[in-house]
Amino acid sequence: MRVGPSQEDIRRQNLGALLRYVHVHGATSRAELTTALGLNRSTIGALTADLAGAGLVSEGAPRETGRAGRPSPVVRPESERVFAYAYSIEVDRLRAARVGLGGAVLDRRETARPCGVAAAETAPLLAAFVKEMQQSVPADSVYVGAGVAVCGLELREEGPVHVKPETGFVDRSLGAALGGHLDSERPILVGNAADVSALAEHARGAAVGCDDLIYLHRDVGVDAGIIVRGRRLTGHGGFGGEVGHMVVQPGGRECGCGSRGCWETVIGEYALLDGGAGGTGRRAALSIVDAAARGDATAKAAVREIGDWLGFGVANLVNIFNPGMVIFGGTLRDVYLASAARVRSRLNSMALPASREQVKLRTPQLGEDAALLGAAELAFEHLLAAPLDATP
Amino acid sequence: MRVGPSQEDIRRQNLGALLRYVHVHGATSRAELTTALGLNRSTIGALTADLAGAGLVSEGAPRETGRAGRPSPVVRPESERVFAYAYSIEVDRLRAARVGLGGAVLDRRETARPCGVAAAETAPLLAAFVKEMQQSVPADSVYVGAGVAVCGLELREEGPVHVKPETGFVDRSLGAALGGHLDSERPILVGNAADVSALAEHARGAAVGCDDLIYLHRDVGVDAGIIVRGRRLTGHGGFGGEVGHMVVQPGGRECGCGSRGCWETVIGEYALLDGGAGGTGRRAALSIVDAAARGDATAKAAVREIGDWLGFGVANLVNIFNPGMVIFGGTLRDVYLASAARVRSRLNSMALPASREQVKLRTPQLGEDAALLGAAELAFEHLLAAPLDATP
Repeated sequence: MRVGPSQEDIRRQNLGALLRYVHVHGATSRAELTTALGLNRSTIGALTADLAGAGLVSEGAPRETGRAGRPSPVVRPESERVFAYAYSIEVDRLRAARVGLGGAVLDRRETARPCGVAAAETAPLLAAFVKEMQQSVPADSVYVGAGVAVCGLELREEGPVHVKPETGFVDRSLGAALGGHLDSERPILVGNAADVSALAEHARGAAVGCDDLIYLHRDVGVDAGIIVRGRRLTGHGGFGGEVGHMVVQPGGRECGCGSRGCWETVIGEYALLDGGAGGTGRRAALSIVDAAARGDATAKAAVREIGDWLGFGVANLVNIFNPGMVIFGGTLRDVYLASAARVRSRLNSMALPASREQVKLRTPQLGEDAALLGAAELAFEHLLAAPLDATP
Repeated sequence: MRVGPSQEDIRRQNLGALLRYVHVHGATSRAELTTALGLNRSTIGALTADLAGAGLVSEGAPRETGRAGRPSPVVRPESERVFAYAYSIEVDRLRAARVGLGGAVLDRRETARPCGVAAAETAPLLAAFVKEMQQSVPADSVYVGAGVAVCGLELREEGPVHVKPETGFVDRSLGAALGGHLDSERPILVGNAADVSALAEHARGAAVGCDDLIYLHRDVGVDAGIIVRGRRLTGHGGFGGEVGHMVVQPGGRECGCGSRGCWETVIGEYALLDGGAGGTGRRAALSIVDAAARGDATAKAAVREIGDWLGFGVANLVNIFNPGMVIFGGTLRDVYLASAARVRSRLNSMALPASREQVKLRTPQLGEDAALLGAAELAFEHLLAAPLDATP
């Protein structure tokens, strides 16, 4: 049920709208903001003053327009001062970054993930990164919160999660473990790697302006960050997007989930490794794509077969969602690039004409930064929902 | 990009929120509206006066509360005066109804659909129903528009469609054909039968309060009305929800779409008719379920097999969407009831534990009226988006 907004709700909404605009578009003149947000000049002036007072934006000299009349001041996000910490917990590595409002990576760290260490147990390592990065943070900076990208399967292993659809998962154990190392009242929001990558590509990557998209992500398993009409598909309990467990081969290979013939058994890391000389992890998977490119017959056959299955599952998703874009992320990026013709051919034979003609197939524009920028986006979403409440 | 609302936007939003509340909940006291909408008493009073002035609501004597103090007046939707026409174009029948604000069917008509008559060609028959029903419409009534439910495949055959995500499809040819017979400036909105049935069950049926649901619909083909976080999944171009063309049996039976092994080839009408003595349409399909219930061995085997495949596809959708509810509509209702144990068993072996535990499997609470009430809901959504603009 839609509830009518109070004056305070409207002010908060307008503050968020203005801050979101400069967060996504960068420095913008007051005149452009007036047009883009549909608010009058005095309201824009008052909102800007409030945000500047909280240290979130600054006003500066206008650009030279070459036109007569007093030029409009420019509102800039405080990208160097206002920041979030972003963490990405991956199968074989751990990454952390300090990300400024506006999406610039100000600092970053990376290390191999030790074998057998659960996601929640990585907290001390990530906290050590933060301690290092904190040394170069200017004194007048504003820390707004942290976001963590974790692969979907591990999120479930963490036990019960709270879902806040607007701001991502709040995972008790991982959040608590990190919180214990970070001396701050700011929130720590945990999201699925595919979900947050979709957010990042939607906000400032390949899918800007495309409100219906599927970001496929493969690490060990396969899942998807799905955006429907501009908002993340979270599902009833926060478990939406488990496309890797769509069965495409009835009675096929046994999957870790207990079912058989799941999509990830034919396009996941293990399927790809069947075509190679062994080994595990990202590098082994990518080396098979490289071997295929060099002409290795076994590797070529493996990549072809995976391309067929990749197209098969994508065709199903295209029929179900009619997305404007499908983005191939994680190690699927390289598999897709090596087998794009086979993926498209499957799509042509299986997907309905209207839907297959409308869908663009793309790789992540933000590359490997998608997960980090998306994790930061979780914290920024929290800020944008109530800009003045979320600052000290 | 979220845009800040103007004062006029806020008033329109509040008028819509109040009218939606009484449309869904029926007569409500001003005091309850104040609490439910988070607006103060004088705002509720002013909004009610505006809506009453437009003939959309009336204020009446309060209910006896048994408490001291002046009781709060009750706001009622003008269910007898404010109405929409609803049409349902089905494979073997045509239906029309006059539906009052609040969702009451005030009048209805039904006839068999002549063989070989395309959806757009049914306009004269539907218009004739309207001419009949118009004779009993009170003189001071307010007609707000019409909604049409059509099965998905026929919508595509109609050619290009405009999509307005908030109000449904506007189909040029069908809308134009009906518009030519109805002398009115009010909009005629066309929606997929599954989509509008999902809307109706969400607003006033089995899924009240459940914002993530899948309404499966089978007529000849199989499609789904999908609601994600309270809003319809339309897809990039309006073709979302074609779950019947998810391939579940690679290399299986040829489908009308040109692919093979689509879900609808194993659970659609034709699959069911394989188990019976022939014939087509709703009655033939249902007679097989009846024969199975009477113990006919061939029919029982057919229903069992379809139950397995029904559970197979539902498990895939449950993994992808993590819905709170799946509703089995159209002739799937009877198939589901005849094979619920097999559907649940498939779900248990194929769907991820968290998602399968959260999903409720249900039949439509509104029964066959879901499509008509949902079609009317398209017209009411248009009204609720801007109550005073949408009345004469």
